[in-house]
Amino acid sequence: MSSSLEGRLATLSITPIEDKTDDGSVVEIKHYFFKPKPAASSNSAIKLLVVLAEVSKDIGKATALAKQLGYKDLRAADDGQVKDVLGVPKSQASLLSIQADHSQFIHLVASSTLQTAHCVSFPNEKHSTEQDLDEITGKTVVLKGTDAKRFAESRECAEFSEVEFAERGEPQPAAPKAAAAPTAVKEPKAQQGKARTAEEEEIHELGIHAKKLEDFPGWYQQVLIKGDMIDYYSVSGCYILKPWSYGIWEVIQRWFDDQIKLLGCSNCSFPLFVSQRVLEKEKDHIEGFAPEVAWVTRAGSTDLEEPIAIRPTSETVMYPYYAKWIRSHRDLPLKLNQWNSVVRWEFKTPQPFLRTREFLWQEGHTAHLTKSEADEEVTDILDLYRRVYEELLAVPVIPGIKTEKEKFAGGLYTTTVEGFIPASGRGIQGGTSHCLGQNFSKMFNIVVQDPSAKEGQELPPIHVWQNSWGLSTRTIGVMVMVHGDDKGLVMPPRVAQLQVIVLGVGITVKTDAEMRQKINDKCKEVVKQLRAAGIKAQVDDRDTHTPGFKFADWELRGVPLRLEIGPKDLASGSAFSARRDTGVKAPIPFDSLVKDVSALLDQIQSDMFTRAKKTFDERVIFLTEWKDFVPTLNKGCICAVPWCDVEACEDAIKKKSAEETAEAVVDERAPSAGAKSLCIPFDKKRFTDKPASEYKCVKCGQQAKHITLFGRSY
Amino acid sequence: MSSSLEGRLATLSITPIEDKTDDGSVVEIKHYFFKPKPAASSNSAIKLLVVLAEVSKDIGKATALAKQLGYKDLRAADDGQVKDVLGVPKSQASLLSIQADHSQFIHLVASSTLQTAHCVSFPNEKHSTEQDLDEITGKTVVLKGTDAKRFAESRECAEFSEVEFAERGEPQPAAPKAAAAPTAVKEPKAQQGKARTAEEEEIHELGIHAKKLEDFPGWYQQVLIKGDMIDYYSVSGCYILKPWSYGIWEVIQRWFDDQIKLLGCSNCSFPLFVSQRVLEKEKDHIEGFAPEVAWVTRAGSTDLEEPIAIRPTSETVMYPYYAKWIRSHRDLPLKLNQWNSVVRWEFKTPQPFLRTREFLWQEGHTAHLTKSEADEEVTDILDLYRRVYEELLAVPVIPGIKTEKEKFAGGLYTTTVEGFIPASGRGIQGGTSHCLGQNFSKMFNIVVQDPSAKEGQELPPIHVWQNSWGLSTRTIGVMVMVHGDDKGLVMPPRVAQLQVIVLGVGITVKTDAEMRQKINDKCKEVVKQLRAAGIKAQVDDRDTHTPGFKFADWELRGVPLRLEIGPKDLASGSAFSARRDTGVKAPIPFDSLVKDVSALLDQIQSDMFTRAKKTFDERVIFLTEWKDFVPTLNKGCICAVPWCDVEACEDAIKKKSAEETAEAVVDERAPSAGAKSLCIPFDKKRFTDKPASEYKCVKCGQQAKHITLFGRSY
Repeated sequence: MSSSLEGRLATLSITPIEDKTDDGSVVEIKHYFFKPKPAASSNSAIKLLVVLAEVSKDIGKATALAKQLGYKDLRAADDGQVKDVLGVPKSQASLLSIQADHSQFIHLVASSTLQTAHCVSFPNEKHSTEQDLDEITGKTVVLKGTDAKRFAESRECAEFSEVEFAERGEPQPAAPKAAAAPTAVKEPKAQQGKARTAEEEEIHELGIHAKKLEDFPGWYQQVLIKGDMIDYYSVSGCYILKPWSYGIWEVIQRWFDDQIKLLGCSNCSFPLFVSQRVLEKEKDHIEGFAPEVAWVTRAGSTDLEEPIAIRPTSETVMYPYYAKWIRSHRDLPLKLNQWNSVVRWEFKTPQPFLRTREFLWQEGHTAHLTKSEADEEVTDILDLYRRVYEELLAVPVIPGIKTEKEKFAGGLYTTTVEGFIPASGRGIQGGTSHCLGQNFSKMFNIVVQDPSAKEGQELPPIHVWQNSWGLSTRTIGVMVMVHGDDKGLVMPPRVAQLQVIVLGVGITVKTDAEMRQKINDKCKEVVKQLRAAGIKAQVDDRDTHTPGFKFADWELRGVPLRLEIGPKDLASGSAFSARRDTGVKAPIPFDSLVKDVSALLDQIQSDMFTRAKKTFDERVIFLTEWKDFVPTLNKGCICAVPWCDVEACEDAIKKKSAEETAEAVVDERAPSAGAKSLCIPFDKKRFTDKPASEYKCVKCGQQAKHITLFGRSY
Repeated sequence: MSSSLEGRLATLSITPIEDKTDDGSVVEIKHYFFKPKPAASSNSAIKLLVVLAEVSKDIGKATALAKQLGYKDLRAADDGQVKDVLGVPKSQASLLSIQADHSQFIHLVASSTLQTAHCVSFPNEKHSTEQDLDEITGKTVVLKGTDAKRFAESRECAEFSEVEFAERGEPQPAAPKAAAAPTAVKEPKAQQGKARTAEEEEIHELGIHAKKLEDFPGWYQQVLIKGDMIDYYSVSGCYILKPWSYGIWEVIQRWFDDQIKLLGCSNCSFPLFVSQRVLEKEKDHIEGFAPEVAWVTRAGSTDLEEPIAIRPTSETVMYPYYAKWIRSHRDLPLKLNQWNSVVRWEFKTPQPFLRTREFLWQEGHTAHLTKSEADEEVTDILDLYRRVYEELLAVPVIPGIKTEKEKFAGGLYTTTVEGFIPASGRGIQGGTSHCLGQNFSKMFNIVVQDPSAKEGQELPPIHVWQNSWGLSTRTIGVMVMVHGDDKGLVMPPRVAQLQVIVLGVGITVKTDAEMRQKINDKCKEVVKQLRAAGIKAQVDDRDTHTPGFKFADWELRGVPLRLEIGPKDLASGSAFSARRDTGVKAPIPFDSLVKDVSALLDQIQSDMFTRAKKTFDERVIFLTEWKDFVPTLNKGCICAVPWCDVEACEDAIKKKSAEETAEAVVDERAPSAGAKSLCIPFDKKRFTDKPASEYKCVKCGQQAKHITLFGRSY
């Protein structure tokens, strides 16, 4: 029955499309192979399930697909199982390799949108059969979507189904619908059997299945999704901030907003859009952002006369107006801030909160008469950033200055608070406060007359000194990474949306109605007392769940303190408390409940910071010899080293550390990136009492200028 | 010396470009003609200044241009003056009509970016000379930018300059720079003479020069710009919200946010972007928005695989996730809100706050188990909107329901608070609270099991009932239009960023230092007392301005209360107060200052509302005869009429009222639009005690269903 692919296509009057593989309109097809376990009612002759879907589609969980197609179970088929049916291993098998001599063992499942695609491509390593292996392996075959569907139908597999798959990153439909099957093709029984109850599903789905120290990326993803912080979104690199995380941002906003208003800042709103000409006014600056700028080129069905950019940051958006508004030194300082979102269309792998294509932040933009005034504000703001991390999020940071290489594009110097993620051993930039110097004011002609000019004296105009500073929702991601554990989130009390969860416990079938009522009433009373004192408390009186489930649920969501109230607690006149951060349990007398809970929340906040600080301190290693550098990185630490301040040397450190890492690495999962400079800490005595100049640069051996932090980073 | 245009172009080897006028890449050129008044040092032979600039450019004020080009003054040339030099009237004159026999009298000024344009077009009614009038009038001539420049130089005018003009809507550069002139062309003396001092400029620019009742659009524009509320922006239809207006939004935000949190709403953040497929999921809905959607098609230099929309509203952004998150009736109600901006790329004339391409708003999206719950929330929210207008902004509104024609696209019904702008006699939609019914939940499959199902009973799943509701920065525009007067803004105290301005007065050259100090100290003390009581107060101690200037300045900005303190006031133990809203002046004893000021601010707030309410009430006219309809509109009123609820009749009212208006109008400036339905007020007894059914429809004569508001509107 062997026949060439060309022959098989020709039978159906299908002509492959040539030279279209670089065209964006060609949709690539991915194949999935499953070994089905048939349900009683199903076709038990089927040995292999072949699923065809666009690479952009998420075929969902095997269990859901099995249910939908009427199987008891589906398991990924191994090479042997695929070869048994198709005659070739998985790597060479595709729709195009299905032939009549084995099609009776195959259930072919195609994405329902396949036929609406203009062209689909079958990847080059696939679609071989033993018979025509040499003939077509290595070629990418491109067919019209309709032809692909026709070809699939023509394979006369035992069963053929079309299924509506969701786009990757978008929620799976609650009950995916099988699309209408083509006539004369058998439709397997789908949608049968009862779905799990919501409750069963919830219990099944509740826990985090990845360990923080074993699979940190998997853990991070699960803790954010299951902890109710975010959801994935159908536009790649964008995420939904659910109230549980957005509320943290609201706490940060209100605190920081109050602080900057005390510094004389006002809020305002500049447009989302910026014209190309204005965006590109400052050369160094735009070079830093150009590859990530998103462009609007069309409105409705009308092409815009010129494309308009979405702001990646607002320097060039705002400063033409600063030039207009600042007419005299009496208009200085000008201190404006915005709470908005910006778009940086990065092509690197996105990470919720850490690297996203749209993110929320505040951006402050100020103008000053003198450099010293600008300098002072840069550090004032940086200290507020430090306090957001340390006082609100209980996350320690190291304030310092960025190297020339790492500073803000177009600015004079950049200060930063650098955080550290122990689980990955990587540094992370927490927030930056830039002094822009006079570069932008010269570019945008923001000048005032020199107020020191005497009557009649003409002095050259002064270009104002500018700062810009920004703090984003990245803060939330850092907080999660630092504090979370294998049970889920751990929220610092000051930013937690819910600080105390109160539950009734110890209720059994034997508990009488009166006692149930008493427990219920006491829970409510406690919540009322706590709320009256400004503590965010809530009672969990769901009668659909066991206390055990509820404990796990609130631990997953990171609520700092749990209070249990049962018959014994009522008898002893106390609630039984459990700390989320340490797991420590202790009774709290009802008499002093509000005072004690309030003190305990403060203690938790402070303990969380102290523990995180201790870890950070232990993981920043001062070293002076290059031989210790990569081994220190490989221990999950960051390095404080004497360094010469020369950019070429910074590049060499990155390159060399990457190379040495690659040599040393046995464990594939270990990070392979080289070390970047993180900052030159302001605290010069933190690592050594001697001045840096008494050391040689760790890399090049020249006289060191500064003790500088280097590390792998986000 | 006559020669055809073709001949003149041919001499320079220039070929006009044919059939390119519809191409967006052709830049249209506009001509401006001035009669110069030469400065002593200038070429006094010049009789005519011809300015060529792209239509997108703003050539700025004649005075600034004069200064830059070295003239004492420039005045727009009239037809006669143009004809004297060029031989043709303005309507026929262009660069292309300049010939050697008159070029010695011309100073030709070209936009410096002319030569960088790919193609430029000279409008069809221009570029004739008497000699070749028939030949080329009526043709649009398109040249390459470089050719246009070459042609301009070839005209050998007495002077030729290039000037860098700003884009329209973008600030004029403080000192526009003349671009380098081409060699062998004389450069007039530019940049000479001293600029006005900032102070002189300020006094000159301070006042509003349009009257609210004579030139309302001009007044609105000036009051916003000069009152420091907004600035125009280089992307058309977008505006900058300065702190003076953004602060009002912050007051509204905080108040409304607190209120909806009491109703159980939480804030969250959904992405700015939405994929085409998701956006277009609900057909009626997208039909309402499609023409205004802005599309991102490129990131950096990479074309996106598929264009991505910027949300015009978030129904389709959010509801796929509602389908995922709502798994049980216990997940209901789900009440989420966002404070964000949305983009609707309207092509109608933009108006700050009222119709802008990006605007700030909140959008609430909630899901409920039952219709009655959803209904209740719709009215709860609408009442909060009413309170924002009436209690914060002192703006009366009429709550009601929109007609089927005017309801939200894809929703079940829309409730609205309708405002009124007395100066234009137009109604304005203030905020809308929609019940979406089950339309979206059916489209997005947002279902829960029926909780009334008994054990083992299978009931069909329930599609949730949804609401969405939004309030935007339009609120601020309405407030400005309702309260502002010919002196500027009038801020209601509850939203004013500054409630009390305190100034020292009565200081003359004779006033001794001690008295000056006393006044100064007292001003500061008063501010301190007021601030301690939570009143937003500030002292204006600028010694660069007279009290008269300061009075005008704060009146322009609408500060509700002014307190003057001078020697006499110190002697009498009181401050002298002046209300912004009424101008009423009265002393306030220092002894009871805080209490009295606080009461006075409350009084101002309440009086502002009462006055505005009285006007509104007087300008909503109940009428039952069609003959009175248009005359009532023409008196600047809106009409409350019995109406039949039939959409065709609503269309007829609009059409007929527009026609009759056009017939009746003598004054060109009168609004010519027909009347739309504004709402069916909830208050059924407001206009008549009789039920609507006892009336005939004002237009079609059928039995009326509701008393409905019709009016011209924004």
